[in-house]
Amino acid sequence: MAALSLSEQDTMQTAMKYVLESGGKRLRATLPVLVGQALGITHSSHYDVGAAIEIIHNFTLVHDDIMDDDSIRRGRPSLHIAYDIPTAINTGDAMLAVSFELLSASDDIPAGTLRRLVQTIGKMVRKVAEGQQLDIDHEGRDDLSEADYLRMIEGKTAIMFETCARCGAILSAADEETVALLSEWGLALGLCFQLVDDLIDVVCDTETLGKPAGSDVLQGKRTLMVIHALNTPDSESRDALLKVLGAKQAAEEDLAAGLEALEHLGSIEYSMALARRNQQVALDVLARLESNPALDVLEALTNYHISRIT
Amino acid sequence: MAALSLSEQDTMQTAMKYVLESGGKRLRATLPVLVGQALGITHSSHYDVGAAIEIIHNFTLVHDDIMDDDSIRRGRPSLHIAYDIPTAINTGDAMLAVSFELLSASDDIPAGTLRRLVQTIGKMVRKVAEGQQLDIDHEGRDDLSEADYLRMIEGKTAIMFETCARCGAILSAADEETVALLSEWGLALGLCFQLVDDLIDVVCDTETLGKPAGSDVLQGKRTLMVIHALNTPDSESRDALLKVLGAKQAAEEDLAAGLEALEHLGSIEYSMALARRNQQVALDVLARLESNPALDVLEALTNYHISRIT
Repeated sequence: MAALSLSEQDTMQTAMKYVLESGGKRLRATLPVLVGQALGITHSSHYDVGAAIEIIHNFTLVHDDIMDDDSIRRGRPSLHIAYDIPTAINTGDAMLAVSFELLSASDDIPAGTLRRLVQTIGKMVRKVAEGQQLDIDHEGRDDLSEADYLRMIEGKTAIMFETCARCGAILSAADEETVALLSEWGLALGLCFQLVDDLIDVVCDTETLGKPAGSDVLQGKRTLMVIHALNTPDSESRDALLKVLGAKQAAEEDLAAGLEALEHLGSIEYSMALARRNQQVALDVLARLESNPALDVLEALTNYHISRIT
Repeated sequence: MAALSLSEQDTMQTAMKYVLESGGKRLRATLPVLVGQALGITHSSHYDVGAAIEIIHNFTLVHDDIMDDDSIRRGRPSLHIAYDIPTAINTGDAMLAVSFELLSASDDIPAGTLRRLVQTIGKMVRKVAEGQQLDIDHEGRDDLSEADYLRMIEGKTAIMFETCARCGAILSAADEETVALLSEWGLALGLCFQLVDDLIDVVCDTETLGKPAGSDVLQGKRTLMVIHALNTPDSESRDALLKVLGAKQAAEEDLAAGLEALEHLGSIEYSMALARRNQQVALDVLARLESNPALDVLEALTNYHISRIT
């Protein structure tokens, strides 16, 4: 993405470059290609769809950072801090538009397939917004269930992984059963990914994270760990968590006590177990596909993220 | 749009209904259909594309109101006031996604045509964002030219009219020359429409407007009238305009003097003349198409908006 020329308007072009050249794992960009390789058929359209979804992912980060008032992204000021809020809203909008332009300009996508991709990716964007809305609506609530959490991360994160895998399979002209299997793999991978992301914030130290450990707790995010802990009976540990939940100015020792409470109440182990179950679902799906070296890459990917905390 | 069910998330569904059921002229929704009728061929897809572009138009209003800090829309609180800014950002995003879902679900669009529509509408959304960005970048500047203004309204307004007309013609399977002519008609109509909209704010009284006359001047908007006036030599009139330009708390008599200055410097007449020229371009294009009663509707539409101020 070095020579990006996506907008004809100067401010917007530099703003888009600021976001898209800031790094990130670019995991979503590679997923359709990896799935295509596992199926033995890749076209340039696998790369185009990966790029389109990666741009959409970055658009959601730009808007999420405004909504969540997050001022740092990938070690640099978020776009609305580096520029301003109107420019960030607007640039995000244009990025979403550009992704559909890219998609429709990819000339080795058969016309009938394009309809299916536009439908799938349009639905994904709506679901991601719905997931973000649930996250907003969850703020400050102490009565959430595991199902509420799963519905939220399915929208915010997992559907993007699912869609990457689904589109990769569709572009490789896979049969419907294979498309369904790889979609299921992507969904389980995405759920595992988000659960692990939440865990990393609690179990890794500040040096590894590149940001203070426990920042999700201070922001009051309703992760599965927090929901699990809030659903235990009143106790000293539960009180210790409540004391720092959403308390951005909490003292260091209080935060340490809050994170210790998550450990003590079994909430970390509970969340870890669900991550492992999703990892296993993803591996089981892969086991049903014909074995080949490229499929091993999908397997390694399934094991990679969770390996950071186990 | 009475029985809209566009989102599966409760807050977002009610927020979308709040926006889409708040009225508005729905001009963009009808344009593809009217163009199809003028060409003698309309399908249900003309309505679908009209609905998709109308939803996109409303999405841009939701986001523009946040960026411009406009608290009233169609006589009711803007979405970010009635709900909150995160919900309004997010609902706008989902509305854009929904419009692409609608488009790809319209089953009487041939697959090859859908590619062209996604390309055209994706580009339109990007251009609208670029136009809005120019508007943001123009804020507070006193060195703008007529060309700067035209580039801005071409993006913010006119390309949407152009796209409605273009898509209508494409769906009627018009030949390329006819598609180009109707696109040109839509563009000229859109330019005329925006020039007239700017004029209405200055020349109509508060009662007709439903909001205070001169509010664009108080907000500091760089309309063609303002740009024309600022490009005249220093004078008492120019100073009277500068005194209230962007001065939201200006006294009533100062505002009256500022608006009087636009009249005195010939800026209103200048802007009116350009609106009339674009009206004429639009009419000339229609004269090149085969006459029929449905084409008369396009002609009447071309004359309607400007008739409000002449």
